Amino acid sequence: MKLDLSATIVDMELGYEIILNEEDAKELGVGARERVNVSKNGKSIVAIVSIAKKSIKKGEIGVTPKVAEKCNIKDNDVVEVSPALRPISVDYIKKKLDGLALTEEEYREIVKDVVSNNLSEIELTAFVTALYIHGISIDEAVYLTKSMVESGERLNLKKKPVFDKHSIGGVPGNKITLLIVPIVAAAGLTIPKTSSRAITNAAGTADIMEVLAPVTFTADEIEEIVNKTNGIIAWGGGVNLAPADDVFIRVEYPLAIDPRALTLCSVMAKKLAVGANYVAIDMPVGSEAKVTSIKEAKEFARDFITLGEKLGITVECAITYGEKPIGRAIGPALEAKEALSTLENGRGPGSFVEKATDIAGMILEAGRVARRGSGKEVALEYLKSGKALEKMREIIEAQGGDPKIKSNDIQLGEYREKIVAQNRGYVTRISNKALIKIARTAGSPKDKGAGILMHVTKGEKVKEGEVLFEIFAEKSYKLEAAVKLAYQLNPISIEGMTLARIPEYSLFYY
Amino acid sequence: MKLDLSATIVDMELGYEIILNEEDAKELGVGARERVNVSKNGKSIVAIVSIAKKSIKKGEIGVTPKVAEKCNIKDNDVVEVSPALRPISVDYIKKKLDGLALTEEEYREIVKDVVSNNLSEIELTAFVTALYIHGISIDEAVYLTKSMVESGERLNLKKKPVFDKHSIGGVPGNKITLLIVPIVAAAGLTIPKTSSRAITNAAGTADIMEVLAPVTFTADEIEEIVNKTNGIIAWGGGVNLAPADDVFIRVEYPLAIDPRALTLCSVMAKKLAVGANYVAIDMPVGSEAKVTSIKEAKEFARDFITLGEKLGITVECAITYGEKPIGRAIGPALEAKEALSTLENGRGPGSFVEKATDIAGMILEAGRVARRGSGKEVALEYLKSGKALEKMREIIEAQGGDPKIKSNDIQLGEYREKIVAQNRGYVTRISNKALIKIARTAGSPKDKGAGILMHVTKGEKVKEGEVLFEIFAEKSYKLEAAVKLAYQLNPISIEGMTLARIPEYSLFYY
Repeated sequence: MKLDLSATIVDMELGYEIILNEEDAKELGVGARERVNVSKNGKSIVAIVSIAKKSIKKGEIGVTPKVAEKCNIKDNDVVEVSPALRPISVDYIKKKLDGLALTEEEYREIVKDVVSNNLSEIELTAFVTALYIHGISIDEAVYLTKSMVESGERLNLKKKPVFDKHSIGGVPGNKITLLIVPIVAAAGLTIPKTSSRAITNAAGTADIMEVLAPVTFTADEIEEIVNKTNGIIAWGGGVNLAPADDVFIRVEYPLAIDPRALTLCSVMAKKLAVGANYVAIDMPVGSEAKVTSIKEAKEFARDFITLGEKLGITVECAITYGEKPIGRAIGPALEAKEALSTLENGRGPGSFVEKATDIAGMILEAGRVARRGSGKEVALEYLKSGKALEKMREIIEAQGGDPKIKSNDIQLGEYREKIVAQNRGYVTRISNKALIKIARTAGSPKDKGAGILMHVTKGEKVKEGEVLFEIFAEKSYKLEAAVKLAYQLNPISIEGMTLARIPEYSLFYY
Repeated sequence: MKLDLSATIVDMELGYEIILNEEDAKELGVGARERVNVSKNGKSIVAIVSIAKKSIKKGEIGVTPKVAEKCNIKDNDVVEVSPALRPISVDYIKKKLDGLALTEEEYREIVKDVVSNNLSEIELTAFVTALYIHGISIDEAVYLTKSMVESGERLNLKKKPVFDKHSIGGVPGNKITLLIVPIVAAAGLTIPKTSSRAITNAAGTADIMEVLAPVTFTADEIEEIVNKTNGIIAWGGGVNLAPADDVFIRVEYPLAIDPRALTLCSVMAKKLAVGANYVAIDMPVGSEAKVTSIKEAKEFARDFITLGEKLGITVECAITYGEKPIGRAIGPALEAKEALSTLENGRGPGSFVEKATDIAGMILEAGRVARRGSGKEVALEYLKSGKALEKMREIIEAQGGDPKIKSNDIQLGEYREKIVAQNRGYVTRISNKALIKIARTAGSPKDKGAGILMHVTKGEKVKEGEVLFEIFAEKSYKLEAAVKLAYQLNPISIEGMTLARIPEYSLFYY
C-alpha cells in the first residue's frame, strides 16, 4: 500500500513529522502518531504522522523542514508514502514499562531512535516515566550512559588527565564555575567545562559566561581553545555531546520530573564524552533543591561514584548547603559581574568564594597540584594572587571576548526597585524557588541585565524598612510584574527570635 | 506579560493548541508544550503552545479550529496571549507517578482536564503509564469511574432494569452482540448496547452493524429507539458517554499497552452512563488475547465484580475460549452476513451460536425471563423460533436501515482468493493476530466488504491443497498485499499427529 503525494513544506518544529489529509491517512491505514516511510528518488526516511482535515488536501503531504532536508524534498515534489512498522525500540520501552531490565543492545537501540527523532512524544514519555518509576540497575546505567556517548561527538584533548565538575542544579546564583575553571586551569590542569543554559533557573552557567564572551563552539574549537588555555566555559548545546539528554529534557520539563536514573546517566555521559578522568560533583541539599535530604544525597553520590568506577572515571561528590542563593547576585549579567569582581579583588561574598574554592580544591588535590587537605588553601591562593583573574582573561580572549573587560563595565538592567522589610526580626528562611520566579519574571535569563541582588542573608537581623534585595530589569513592565510578584511570594521570611507565643492572647492583660 | 497577536486559523487536528513564532514565545517566556491564555472580547481559553520559526511570523498566532471556535476567532483577528499556569491536575499526575493513591477530587480534576483537552500528550502519557505500572486500588477505581461518568452524557431509559454486555476485545469474528441484543430484546429486556469501531481488530461491532443500519445517534435518539424496541446496537462514539476513554486510547494505542485499571474503569463508566443495572462481561482468554491465562482472567473478573458492587451494578463474567476466531467470518460485511444468516436460519457456526447464546442466557436468567440454568436453552429458543430475527428487523428499522434486508443481499468484496494447505495434517494452531493483520491489509474495517472467511477450524484434519480460508477485498492491490502477507504469516499451522521425530535422522536407514 503506497500513495504518491504532492509535497508542501510546513515550517513547524515538529521533528521528523509529516502531515496527511485524513482521507489519505485512512487509505494508507495509518493514524495520528503512527509512522510512514517517505521517499523521493531513493532517499527515504521514517516520519511520524499528523492528520489534517483541510489545511493539507487529499493528494498532498505536509513535510517539516527536517524531513524535507533528509529526502531533498521541495514544494510540489511528488513523494512516495507507505505505512512503516513501529521501531523495535518501542518494544524495549514496553519491556521497561513492565519493570524488566534492558540489555546493552536494547538501550543502544532506544538511544539511537531518541537521537534520530524516531520516537513520538508518547513513546518518549513512556520511557522517561518508566525510568522515573522503576529506576535502573547500575549495569543498565552503564549501558544507557555508553549508548548516550556513542550517539554523539567526543572530545579528544591532548593534555591528560582531564578534570571536570558538575553542579546538580536548582540553586540560584550558583556561578561557581566562573571561579573554578580559571583556578584549576591556572594550576595547569585541563578542564573543558561545558555548561547548560537555564531551563527552570534564573541563569545557567552558559548564560552567565555569555556576558563575558561567546560560548558556542564546535568540538574542534573546544579542543583548540583548551589545548591553548587549559580551560573553557562553553555552552553544551553548541557541541553534540550525548544529544539524547536534550530530547529527554523535552519530556521531563513539562512534567517537572527529574528521573534520578536519567540525571545520573546524562551527567556521566557528557563527562565521558569530553574524556574526563576525574569529576567533582556539587550536590546542593535543600528543601527546594533537587536533592532534599542528606540521606538522599549520600545515596545519589554513591550511585555517581559506582557508575564512575564502571566507566573508568574517578568521581568525588561535595554535598553542599542549598537553602539560600550562592553569593548575592542572581541573573546573567549580575552573576558575571559578581564573578569577575571576585576575581579582580581576590575576594567576594563568603558563600560564593567558600563553595568555589572548596570544589576547586578537590580538583587541585586530585590533580596532585595540592597536597591532600590543602587544596582549598591553594585554590584561595590562586584567587588572591590574581593568577585566576589572569587565566580568566586568557580564556575570555580565547573564546573571542574582550580580555580587558572590567566588572564595572558590565551593563545591568536600568529599571530597578528595592524590596524592603515589612517588619523587624531575623531572616529565618529564604525561598530559592520564589527568588527564581521573581528573577524570571523580571526577564532572566533572556534579558541578560535582569535579575536580583541580595542585600541580606539567612540569619541576619534586619530593621523594618531595610533593603532585603533589589530587582533589576531591562523593561519597565517586566520590573513592575516582578515587584508585584515579590510582594506576593515574599521570598524572605523575617521573624522575631520568639517565633510563637502560647497562648496567643492571655487573660493576664484584661 | 502579554502580547497582542494577529490570528491565522491553522486547520490541524491538534486539539486546543496554538502556534507562536519563536520570538514571541521567548518574549512571553513560554516553551513548546507549555500553556497560554488566549482571549478575544472577553472569551478566553487555555491552549497548549507549539512553536514555528517561519510559517507563523512574529506578531502572528496560529490557531487550531477548536480554539478558534471557543473564542470566536477569525483570520486576522487580534487576540491577547499571556502565559498560563500549568493545571493543578499535573501535580496529581505527578503524585500518581510517585505511586501514591489519589483522592476523588484529584481524579475528578484530572478527568475534567483530560476531557477538555487541557493536558498535553506528555502529561496524558505520564498518567496512563503511571496507571499501567502502579495500578489502582478499588476505591480509586470508583473515583476514576465516577469522574469519567460525570464528564459525559448519561442515558435515562424508561424501562428498568437495564441490561448490557461487554466483550474484552482482541478476538476476530466476535460478532456475538448481533445475536445477543435481538435475543435479549425479544425476551422483553432493555439492552442499550453501545459499541466501538475497530482500533486494532478487523471489525468492531459498530463497523459490522453499520452494514445493516446507521449506528450514529445522540443520547436522545438512543433513548427513543430503546424505549420503542428494547434494544439498539449503536456506535459509542456518536454519543458522549465517558469521553475520557477516547483520549486515553490515543495514548495507549501507540504504546500497545492496555492498563488493566483503565480498561476496568472505562468499561464500567460506559455501563454506568447508560444506566445499566446488570452487565455480562465476555472475557476471552488466549495466547494472543488481551488476557492470556485463566488465573489472570479470574483476577480481572473479580475486579469487575467488586467495582460493580461499589457502583451498584451486578456484574457476571464469562471467561471464554480465545484461541481462534468466533464463527467463520472476519470483516464488517462478512460478519454482518454471518450474523443475519444465523438469525434467518435459526442456526450457524457452532462457536458463534454457542458463545452468543451462553451470554444471552446469562442475561435472560438475570432478567428472570429464564430459570437459573435454563438461560441458554431459552436463548436458543428465541433464535430458532425466528423471534430474534423479527426483533433484529425491528431494531434495524428503528435505526433507519432496511428491515427487509436478507443476508444474501449483503455485498462482499469482489476480489477474492482462496488460501490452500501446503501439506496434510491437523490444524494445530490458528493465529488470531495474523488473521487480523491479513484482514486489515485486505482493507478491513475501512472497506466494509474486505475480510476473511474461514474454511477450517482448530483440530480439523486437512488435505494438501484443501482451502483453509478465503480473503475478500474491494480493491485488487489490497487483495494482492493480503495474499502475500497470508503466505508470509501462515496463520494456520498444520502438523501431522506426530509433531516431532527424535532423532530426526536415524542411522537405521543407512
